[in-house]
Amino acid sequence: MHPHWYAIVMAGGAGTRFWPASRRLRPKQLLGLGPRPDESLLRATVRRLSHTFSSDHIYIATGAHLLDATRAELPGIAPQNLLAEPVARNTAPCIAWANAVIRRRDPEAVVAVLSADHVVTDEGAFDRALDLAMRVASSGVMVTMGIVPTRPETGYGYIEVGPERADGAYDAVRFVEKPDAARAAEMVASGRYLWNAGFFFFRSKDMTEAVDQHLPLLGRGIQAIDAAASQGEEARMLEQVFPTFDAVSIDVGVMEKLSRLAVVRASFGWSDVGSWQTAWELSNHDQDGNAAPAGAVLIDSRGNLVADWSSKGSGKVIALVGVEGLVVVETDDALLVMPRSRSQDVRRVVEALQQRGHTDKL
Amino acid sequence: MHPHWYAIVMAGGAGTRFWPASRRLRPKQLLGLGPRPDESLLRATVRRLSHTFSSDHIYIATGAHLLDATRAELPGIAPQNLLAEPVARNTAPCIAWANAVIRRRDPEAVVAVLSADHVVTDEGAFDRALDLAMRVASSGVMVTMGIVPTRPETGYGYIEVGPERADGAYDAVRFVEKPDAARAAEMVASGRYLWNAGFFFFRSKDMTEAVDQHLPLLGRGIQAIDAAASQGEEARMLEQVFPTFDAVSIDVGVMEKLSRLAVVRASFGWSDVGSWQTAWELSNHDQDGNAAPAGAVLIDSRGNLVADWSSKGSGKVIALVGVEGLVVVETDDALLVMPRSRSQDVRRVVEALQQRGHTDKL
Repeated sequence: MHPHWYAIVMAGGAGTRFWPASRRLRPKQLLGLGPRPDESLLRATVRRLSHTFSSDHIYIATGAHLLDATRAELPGIAPQNLLAEPVARNTAPCIAWANAVIRRRDPEAVVAVLSADHVVTDEGAFDRALDLAMRVASSGVMVTMGIVPTRPETGYGYIEVGPERADGAYDAVRFVEKPDAARAAEMVASGRYLWNAGFFFFRSKDMTEAVDQHLPLLGRGIQAIDAAASQGEEARMLEQVFPTFDAVSIDVGVMEKLSRLAVVRASFGWSDVGSWQTAWELSNHDQDGNAAPAGAVLIDSRGNLVADWSSKGSGKVIALVGVEGLVVVETDDALLVMPRSRSQDVRRVVEALQQRGHTDKL
Repeated sequence: MHPHWYAIVMAGGAGTRFWPASRRLRPKQLLGLGPRPDESLLRATVRRLSHTFSSDHIYIATGAHLLDATRAELPGIAPQNLLAEPVARNTAPCIAWANAVIRRRDPEAVVAVLSADHVVTDEGAFDRALDLAMRVASSGVMVTMGIVPTRPETGYGYIEVGPERADGAYDAVRFVEKPDAARAAEMVASGRYLWNAGFFFFRSKDMTEAVDQHLPLLGRGIQAIDAAASQGEEARMLEQVFPTFDAVSIDVGVMEKLSRLAVVRASFGWSDVGSWQTAWELSNHDQDGNAAPAGAVLIDSRGNLVADWSSKGSGKVIALVGVEGLVVVETDDALLVMPRSRSQDVRRVVEALQQRGHTDKL
């Protein structure tokens, strides 16, 4: 393991797209979506990173309300490596603070920032791309990772790629917001655009400088937290200052403003698992295209996703007869049945529950 | 209430057509299917009969394994009116024994036999038909009830009707087994055929004589039980004799063999609730044709039946998005999702569970 390499795993998130499995206190990264239903996305992320980083160099940034669940999910991560944001303020304050914590420990730190709730199916390719990105970042340029697109996806942002660099990365020309279908098809056909996975790599001191330059209010807040930390007062100052930060993403607040950014081209079966539809696509299927627990009874049924989040040991039997392309999700206190093609409309259920005051179901 | 009128409610049954709501220890008559989900079919049957019979004249014939559940469901029925068959032997032994119990109490008894698991939506019409049938039976002819058909149903048996009698009933010409679709259409168009609801009415002594004549082995067994009863030994003799009876229906064993049988024409919104499809048809629907618990969240969904048989107080939220014509049935330990049109295939789930040895789910 490289002595100056560190990782920040962003594990906040309050998504409702996986209701009823995902809840305020059990967000998406705590679920086992995709090919490994028995391993949460968060745990899988940390496991992958442990190929490259020693576990005491892996930091988890999460919300205060998720601290207990996150600690329980990651028994191998030391308590001081779990960073609890008092309130959610998007990714720039999160990364700036976590970066400051790491820099206090190791001024020579080189840092990877990744999301806790993505799926990677080719872990060898991921490890190689990560290694390249960290080596390029060590040279003093900030780095992003661009995923070679496999379809004209309109749900992702893109990165335009320039000439290849001597170190194996490419110059990043610019970020492109989520495109419409025609533009997405053009971009993918051109070969010059990669998906923005939201993974970033930098020397800690380079990020400090970039924040100070592009988000000076945030930079001054971080300095105040650093100063308080030297007096053993970090927690108090964090409570005071963090809520005052603007909620801005690191992409918009910092990365898009850099005059120079490198991008590592990569292809490792990446997905941000944005919906139940995607979760079905990533799952292991039987010969009829069903992804279901072993005990399910499936008769004349095809292409269904069945997920049982009931308490362990409930031994619930889920039986489908003559249905196709459905999502069926059980929990102890809720059941969802819908066609996979309607996955985007889960939010309408969440809205209905909010309107009825069923906050215990959210 | 007429002092010599009695009712036998047949509440055995081990149906699997309402899995997962119906189970070996919670058969169909213990469920609230149809228009009154909060009242079991059994309780509704007894409530209807209480318009015509005093409650201590209402007898419930059930299986020994269902005795506790039946008693719990009917707190107003005295324990001595609950008759537990040691084993199921179809309807002839059941009725012959229950009839003997009643005749010992009242040699002048006139008896109605009805099923515990049918739905009646026009209770006034039911009461009037019942009263007529009992009055006709009191004159010494056995009586059946014929339901005016509302469609060319192939799932029911029919009764061919002859001339009207002076007492307002008709002569029953013969029973017709479940017909094919063409024959059913002919019969319904002719106006001469009624559905056989399986309700029978007779003087107790007439049934004793009919059993002795047409099912002499059963008749002798009942005599042995009667003799033992006079010695306080009924339970012991029942255990010994009942299992030796042939499993034969009262229709085939007795009614079809009678030289003279009357039929009361009736029309009271009758159904034997043979499937989840029928349960949906009989249920109260919202404007989109959904029958669902009040707490369900239904978005862009039409014509669904949602039934929650989870423990009371679980407060489970069932959410449907964009689905049509489904049956969704929840219990504490099972979930069924299928199109209404596949209701007949519930048995395939039950068979699969039997094959896997999941007898706890049956």
